[in-house]
Amino acid sequence: MIQTSGNSMTTLTQDALVEQLSAIVGADKVRTDADSLETFGKDWTKIYPPKPSAIVFPKTTQQVADIVKFANAQNVALVPSGGRTGLSAGAVAANGEVVVAFDYMNQISDFNATDRTVKCGAGVITEQLQTFAEEHDLFYPVDFASAGSSQIGGNISTNAGGIKVIRWGMTRDWVAGMTVVTGEGEILELNKDLMKNNTGYDMRQLFIGGEGTLGFVTEATMRLTRTPKNLTVLVLGIPELDDVMKVLSQFQSTMDLTAFEFFSDKAMQKVLARGDVPAPFETSTDFYALIEFEAVTDADMDQAMVQFEKCMEEGWVVDGVISQSETQAANLWRLREDISETISEWTPYKNDISVVVSKVPPFLRDIDEIVTREYPDFEIIWFGHIGDGNLHLNILKPDDLAKEEFFERCGKVSTWVFEIVEKYQGSVSAEHGVGMTKKPYLEYTRSAAEIAYMRAVKKVFDPNNIMNPGKLIDA
Amino acid sequence: MIQTSGNSMTTLTQDALVEQLSAIVGADKVRTDADSLETFGKDWTKIYPPKPSAIVFPKTTQQVADIVKFANAQNVALVPSGGRTGLSAGAVAANGEVVVAFDYMNQISDFNATDRTVKCGAGVITEQLQTFAEEHDLFYPVDFASAGSSQIGGNISTNAGGIKVIRWGMTRDWVAGMTVVTGEGEILELNKDLMKNNTGYDMRQLFIGGEGTLGFVTEATMRLTRTPKNLTVLVLGIPELDDVMKVLSQFQSTMDLTAFEFFSDKAMQKVLARGDVPAPFETSTDFYALIEFEAVTDADMDQAMVQFEKCMEEGWVVDGVISQSETQAANLWRLREDISETISEWTPYKNDISVVVSKVPPFLRDIDEIVTREYPDFEIIWFGHIGDGNLHLNILKPDDLAKEEFFERCGKVSTWVFEIVEKYQGSVSAEHGVGMTKKPYLEYTRSAAEIAYMRAVKKVFDPNNIMNPGKLIDA
Repeated sequence: MIQTSGNSMTTLTQDALVEQLSAIVGADKVRTDADSLETFGKDWTKIYPPKPSAIVFPKTTQQVADIVKFANAQNVALVPSGGRTGLSAGAVAANGEVVVAFDYMNQISDFNATDRTVKCGAGVITEQLQTFAEEHDLFYPVDFASAGSSQIGGNISTNAGGIKVIRWGMTRDWVAGMTVVTGEGEILELNKDLMKNNTGYDMRQLFIGGEGTLGFVTEATMRLTRTPKNLTVLVLGIPELDDVMKVLSQFQSTMDLTAFEFFSDKAMQKVLARGDVPAPFETSTDFYALIEFEAVTDADMDQAMVQFEKCMEEGWVVDGVISQSETQAANLWRLREDISETISEWTPYKNDISVVVSKVPPFLRDIDEIVTREYPDFEIIWFGHIGDGNLHLNILKPDDLAKEEFFERCGKVSTWVFEIVEKYQGSVSAEHGVGMTKKPYLEYTRSAAEIAYMRAVKKVFDPNNIMNPGKLIDA
Repeated sequence: MIQTSGNSMTTLTQDALVEQLSAIVGADKVRTDADSLETFGKDWTKIYPPKPSAIVFPKTTQQVADIVKFANAQNVALVPSGGRTGLSAGAVAANGEVVVAFDYMNQISDFNATDRTVKCGAGVITEQLQTFAEEHDLFYPVDFASAGSSQIGGNISTNAGGIKVIRWGMTRDWVAGMTVVTGEGEILELNKDLMKNNTGYDMRQLFIGGEGTLGFVTEATMRLTRTPKNLTVLVLGIPELDDVMKVLSQFQSTMDLTAFEFFSDKAMQKVLARGDVPAPFETSTDFYALIEFEAVTDADMDQAMVQFEKCMEEGWVVDGVISQSETQAANLWRLREDISETISEWTPYKNDISVVVSKVPPFLRDIDEIVTREYPDFEIIWFGHIGDGNLHLNILKPDDLAKEEFFERCGKVSTWVFEIVEKYQGSVSAEHGVGMTKKPYLEYTRSAAEIAYMRAVKKVFDPNNIMNPGKLIDA
């Protein structure tokens, strides 16, 4: 556990704080019990001990605005809390902040079948929206492991990605319009849900991925799309890393893929060792690609076979399997999706990094090389959304190495990794955001001039540094 | 011709100005001849008389940065000039500004087949990029009437849309990364061409659609995509406006449309009267929809026929025709694409407005009603990208009405139109941008609080109001 720098700035006592917050949201919507402070004061990271002053549960945008105005007047720092599934400590209250939790703003309303849009309170859970879409014969395509807990407001504030980005993009692409409360307590209705609206700076885009540092998202109109048909999965065995990219190009030349995922044999072997998922085929190769596409007609399936045979002929692929049913497709997906949970017992050091697709092979090799040379006892597990250049690097703790020493060595690994990220012009956070954990490394991806402009933009919307201070950038 | 407010602020003489600009770009890249001042001082709008002090043609980003630093030091206002095809006077120099023309920054480089990206200088012409993509068996999907002249830098700065937005989005969706020079002369490399990069505020998005008021785009890495196959066109006759939206929903429920365009019978009759395009079918209806989709296999064609028959059964559609060849498809497109040129002889009053798709019918009827009631001699021609809620309103000048009186009355029409836009929460500029012509009407779409934040954001990137002053917002 690390102490963060900075402190809550208010001179109010906790009692006075609770009283004034209660005047805004009602006494039953302010909590200070130890359980609540512990639960709502952190996200999925476990590095910083939570220490909020109070948790407040607004029910309306106006209440959020009133909380922010009060916070400005009394110099109270605010931390937004959604599903608390963040992996970069973007929603941790470690310095006596007041946590604004959106759990009661979870209404879905104003569905419009023609526009294929629906309004969501910030607290709507991702899965709730996915289910709502299904019930209306539509589809909300942004999907990831934490969909059962993560909230729309948090998804927007972190521009959540996931497993279908290659076809449907990030959360950014599904926000038709949104209501935000700025750091000054101003309520902005951004973009009016329009598909085309060229009337000046699209400020929606600043709040998407803004990690709550400019203002809090309170409502958003989300787009839905048609339901994909007969999603079919192909898993391919690929001996050479460079050929993974050739396989991607080959398939993309004629098909619209809905996923192109990647995992190493080491990753798959961990999953297979659990014994509840069958191997895709007998041949073993160093790398595997999982390709998903819509097979609406036999012609689609034929097209996939044409590309598969081309990849076999070229020697890029040596074996493969295609799903013939939904169950088979689900089982093939488990080879990829079960990796994260399977390796969790080895206390993995994780990094969520990206480069442009074509640079993935040399980038990955550079990291492999330095880690293997310096720490030959470390086992490196690679997987990720390779179709969009996003790799999840996982290093497993050797059984005989103490946790403390493992983490200390991982600190060195981080520096090497981020230096290689910088060399390849990549991102130190592809989809998990910056929060507190990546803040010290931001400069490996963003220039000093960019960071200075980010600070100035923050100052415009949150002049008193009330909104999620200490996350992303220091004001 | 209208005089704009404000004046160039510099105290330099024109000779001194030319001398100092020449020191940056070379004497052969600064022009002050009358022809150049006239040509490069305006866009396709003809409302404001061009009056630039000089035209400068940088060849590198560094030269642009040097020009901006010089402009800050000497208080010289700069106006960016791309293909000068803008329709909102966003690139007009009417007040003695120096025009920065990007014509010499027209290199295409760094094509990467795996990433499907290519780097373009700001001066690359849209058609040049489209052709480059074709030569590499790829496709640049943002397309519109001015593609033969408009430049990528201008497309980005105005977030250009066009006829395929329903499938491929706006220019915003195709910018992988970009280099900009801010109003302080800082060079920013934004987003490093990554598909996933959640490292704080995505400042790329501010410059896209920023109309050159925050900084100038000098280079951009543009994404390409696979070439669509066998684009097939369906034109449908639809008696009732409300049913146009039902037809859209019906087709979208199972198909990915590449276009869904709309035009009124009045619009089509003008095109048919020219005699070089055949009528699509014998039945005449008040409205028509043009639907385009990829027909890769017979199954795609069958799917379109299923939806067509459903629309006939429901009575929404009373006649239709489907293209059987590229020539037929091109001819059907002319019914829609020839409208603008055909009606130009009537000196049309034009507006480019949008609402959410489901509100199009009542919105359009409200405008029709008030214009028809107040000016029964005005002929209203509707067409547009109705699949994304974007309508082009055109009112033709009656032959016996003097131009001056027509324009005076159109001023009143504008107020009615924008009041109705506000009532329906629409946009006063769907895709043409704000520039000078829509600036007085911005508040019909953006709130006072939003406009105040836009001003503050402008101040961050362009503190001395050097970059395209007087456009979009007043600093």
